[in-house]
Amino acid sequence: MPRYDAPVRDMQFVLHELLSLQSYSNLEGFGDATPDLVDQILEEAGKFCKEVTHPLNMVGDSQGCVRASDGSVKTPDGFKEAYTSFIEGGWPLLGADPEMGGQGLPYVLGTAFNEMMSSSNMAFGMYPGLTRGAYEALMEGGSDEQKAKYGPNMAAGIWAGTMNLTEPHCGTDLGMMKTKAVPQADGSYKITGQKIWISGGEQDLTENIIHLVLAKIEGAPDTIKGVSLFVVPKYIVNEDGSLGARNECGCGGLEEKMGIHGNATCVMNYDGATGWLVGEENKGMRTMFVMMNEARLGVGLQGLAQAEIAYQNAADFARDRLQGRSLTGPKNPDGPADPIIVHPDVRRMLMDSRAFIEGGRAFLYWVALHGDLQEKSPDEAVREKAKDYMALMTPVLKAFLTDRGLKACNDGMQLHGGSGFTKEWGMEQFVRDVRIALIYEGTNGVQALDLVGRKLAANGGRAIFSFFAEIDDFIGDNADNEALAEMVAQLTEAKAQLQDGTTWLMQNGMSDFNNAGAASMDYLQLFGLTALAYMWVRMAKVALEKTGQGADDPYYADKLVTARYYMERVLPESASHLAKLKTGAGSMMELAADRF
Amino acid sequence: MPRYDAPVRDMQFVLHELLSLQSYSNLEGFGDATPDLVDQILEEAGKFCKEVTHPLNMVGDSQGCVRASDGSVKTPDGFKEAYTSFIEGGWPLLGADPEMGGQGLPYVLGTAFNEMMSSSNMAFGMYPGLTRGAYEALMEGGSDEQKAKYGPNMAAGIWAGTMNLTEPHCGTDLGMMKTKAVPQADGSYKITGQKIWISGGEQDLTENIIHLVLAKIEGAPDTIKGVSLFVVPKYIVNEDGSLGARNECGCGGLEEKMGIHGNATCVMNYDGATGWLVGEENKGMRTMFVMMNEARLGVGLQGLAQAEIAYQNAADFARDRLQGRSLTGPKNPDGPADPIIVHPDVRRMLMDSRAFIEGGRAFLYWVALHGDLQEKSPDEAVREKAKDYMALMTPVLKAFLTDRGLKACNDGMQLHGGSGFTKEWGMEQFVRDVRIALIYEGTNGVQALDLVGRKLAANGGRAIFSFFAEIDDFIGDNADNEALAEMVAQLTEAKAQLQDGTTWLMQNGMSDFNNAGAASMDYLQLFGLTALAYMWVRMAKVALEKTGQGADDPYYADKLVTARYYMERVLPESASHLAKLKTGAGSMMELAADRF
Repeated sequence: MPRYDAPVRDMQFVLHELLSLQSYSNLEGFGDATPDLVDQILEEAGKFCKEVTHPLNMVGDSQGCVRASDGSVKTPDGFKEAYTSFIEGGWPLLGADPEMGGQGLPYVLGTAFNEMMSSSNMAFGMYPGLTRGAYEALMEGGSDEQKAKYGPNMAAGIWAGTMNLTEPHCGTDLGMMKTKAVPQADGSYKITGQKIWISGGEQDLTENIIHLVLAKIEGAPDTIKGVSLFVVPKYIVNEDGSLGARNECGCGGLEEKMGIHGNATCVMNYDGATGWLVGEENKGMRTMFVMMNEARLGVGLQGLAQAEIAYQNAADFARDRLQGRSLTGPKNPDGPADPIIVHPDVRRMLMDSRAFIEGGRAFLYWVALHGDLQEKSPDEAVREKAKDYMALMTPVLKAFLTDRGLKACNDGMQLHGGSGFTKEWGMEQFVRDVRIALIYEGTNGVQALDLVGRKLAANGGRAIFSFFAEIDDFIGDNADNEALAEMVAQLTEAKAQLQDGTTWLMQNGMSDFNNAGAASMDYLQLFGLTALAYMWVRMAKVALEKTGQGADDPYYADKLVTARYYMERVLPESASHLAKLKTGAGSMMELAADRF
Repeated sequence: MPRYDAPVRDMQFVLHELLSLQSYSNLEGFGDATPDLVDQILEEAGKFCKEVTHPLNMVGDSQGCVRASDGSVKTPDGFKEAYTSFIEGGWPLLGADPEMGGQGLPYVLGTAFNEMMSSSNMAFGMYPGLTRGAYEALMEGGSDEQKAKYGPNMAAGIWAGTMNLTEPHCGTDLGMMKTKAVPQADGSYKITGQKIWISGGEQDLTENIIHLVLAKIEGAPDTIKGVSLFVVPKYIVNEDGSLGARNECGCGGLEEKMGIHGNATCVMNYDGATGWLVGEENKGMRTMFVMMNEARLGVGLQGLAQAEIAYQNAADFARDRLQGRSLTGPKNPDGPADPIIVHPDVRRMLMDSRAFIEGGRAFLYWVALHGDLQEKSPDEAVREKAKDYMALMTPVLKAFLTDRGLKACNDGMQLHGGSGFTKEWGMEQFVRDVRIALIYEGTNGVQALDLVGRKLAANGGRAIFSFFAEIDDFIGDNADNEALAEMVAQLTEAKAQLQDGTTWLMQNGMSDFNNAGAASMDYLQLFGLTALAYMWVRMAKVALEKTGQGADDPYYADKLVTARYYMERVLPESASHLAKLKTGAGSMMELAADRF
């Protein structure tokens, strides 16, 4: 069975040394997040995930969830007990608002916990993950009464939350949805329709499930502009907070899927279920986007998290498996063969994964910190830039981290040879589980289109220009840093390529929108590669400073090697993405549809 | 459920128009393969695969194989009946030797049939695929008596064959194997040991199973140089050809795997089983390599074949699924939305797959034709070049076609959005099934090492230099072809990059073998990209000639569009592979093993 050990040291490096969390102690919640407390939380969280959720990962995959004829759903053995420990440990409250009973700690710290949870058991982690998203949406769009009614129990994880968007005939194009809401005399609505692919739509972990459901109010425009958001609890919550009648909604079936078997993916039937409007009529997408953006970061995180556990076990295998001899002579002459880690191509897979994981982690936490800043910074300019970054980086993070996360899982499996293909070793589960992350919360193609179609152009390109300016500042600040010179030069080239691609898009994407669409995925990849290059050079700078100050932790030397590997062995891909995107939509769009 | 329709037109193009099979009619077997017969076989084979094997593909996945307590194995419902039809149709005999009752048709034609079989049902196709490999090895290395005893029934598929190499502690490094062979007074051997991952090691499809087993004869060197090959029939074959006693070997268990559930992957226990030496003592690897090379082409073919069926169904979905509107205005204004094929990023996935599949098919069949030429050409120089090419191209074909085949399956699944992740649509099965092809018969990393470590250097680089010369000749011959000028220029650049990479390897790989290992996978990718570019320009040339001659089949115009797409949108990756490989082994090999 695979192991999981939380990468606490690397998380500490990113939180303390790269992002300097302590320098934000003037911000709400950050003051409490002293280095000691952060370290303690990381250690405890790592222990919880290693001991409680990780041992259930393979069980969850092999058992899956089971729906009984009454529509109830049983999660795999041990999930309920683990969930209870999770609640009792107070883990859901880490980042929740103090007025809802939460600890109000930084979002970026919660991100580290979420990464561990998702590495250790992705299917399990989705239950609280969706609850958190639903909670955030209610906090953003709900009335004070709704917040008071659902907030504390959702913050604590005692009640779960779900998001209900997709219908059989519409996923990406939600304007086509058919679910109806009919106003009632008491101010509530009767919701009728079918939603599909609802993660955790039904389960046996929580006393109540608070469904957030998109539907069209009778008479509303039959487009995306007629979509409203409703809160539809599984059990109606009485005035005193106790649970009342069972609502007219339930799980009509479970999907059979490639992976994440431990998570119940439900067909949800709403048969005149009682719901209450969240926010304004016909403005449902606005609030839902809060949840979706949160969820998109959470999905990018899953790509990283699965890569991490795949990498750990691949490294173990590479050290343990004796097979063949080093090309440069035996390294284990007394053994029957050398461990396969002596082979360069095995190293290639490990180093590719490592360079992605550490760079991706820095990128994810850096973006998450902007999530804190956009809310909490006292400086309006900082808040604006942080908000710009969140909007710009979210699609990149979601798609790039899942795309590369799948590659890392595949590499970890590949490194295992035939064992990787067997269920017994657990590696193929990571590939199957992570695969959904490229699809849900908007496919990676939709993310790419969001990036080039909306995010780039917003506010006259303010976000991307401020990202370029930040990189230029960094390059300028380090012009005299000889030890960093080669990497700074590589970053300069990467940034120039991204700028070149951006200019091409601005010049060619408006005259023919298909050029923008045709370039979108290569542009997103180019963006992701450049963002990670920026993270890597920043990390290398920190590592150089620490070793310069006499730090003898080999962690820093390793960081520098991995930085060099990223710049030499991963970043060169950006040139090919740039070349591809500049060819335009021509040959891509030319064939008639019936000729495929 | 997915559909499968054999791509007969494209196969015809490759066989008749690109490779001009009819021009080889002086070769044994080719004279019989008249264009009419070839077309008839393609049509009939397509019908067989569509109607008989393909409908069992999802059944095979969901049921898998079941081992009873007596060690017998039941294949999924319908497999036995389909196999009987396969035998009765005489399909296994297509390419088999006339003296064994076969039709002796060209190997390249059999390749087309194998592609269809593998597209329609990869797990099913593996049973006859392994039999074919075992048959070839016996024809190569067996005595006349062995050929006469096993050949005809194996050629006809009445008996199956297997290859037994891997043991629990050794896969790639077969010198470590422990299976022993003890000589008996009657000239036979008693074989004892355990082999794992034996595809079709036990099944209920055939009357007998002829196992080819690698083992060390008592007293032989305990290295790869002490490995001998044995034929170990499940039922001993009597002098009169009837089946005698059950041999002391059997299936000890089935592996639970990520995919190819319809194929029985067996743990095989040999408990003093009776076997007979094939070829010389201690020279078992020589004959086994015949089987492995055949098998490696067959595995590359699987990558292509799964890509083809994934692509077909992705194209259907892209035409059928209505969601959103074209970026350039509604294309289906009367419908609720446009089909998603209007979106450039959806096209990108389809065109990537198409450019890979058609280019990969040309490459595969071109290599397979060299398989015929190396045996059958009356011209020694042609035979030598063909043999050189087979050796050089086999690892490229195996790794490149499976690597890109997985990408195409993933793209086909991705294009389906959430539906792609559900079992119901069948797309995720292609991803799970094809995944093994990157691993078995030598992982793709092992192929890359074989390419740079053995194949490049063999005979002073004769094979690669003759490939360069062939491309140069083509470029020279087409210097005045204006319609082809842009593609010829792109090919010229690609070939220069491959040459650059080859030179780098020769200069740096010998001084530090780790440089060769570190470069190997990028070099293989660069090679594959260049080989497909060569195929694409050749195909474009044919298509231009045909349209110039007034052919109005839109097939040719599509071929030209796809050629352009490949050169613009796929080939640019070669530059990044070249840049990566030239960085050497430095950062890849630097970390201490315990620091991963």
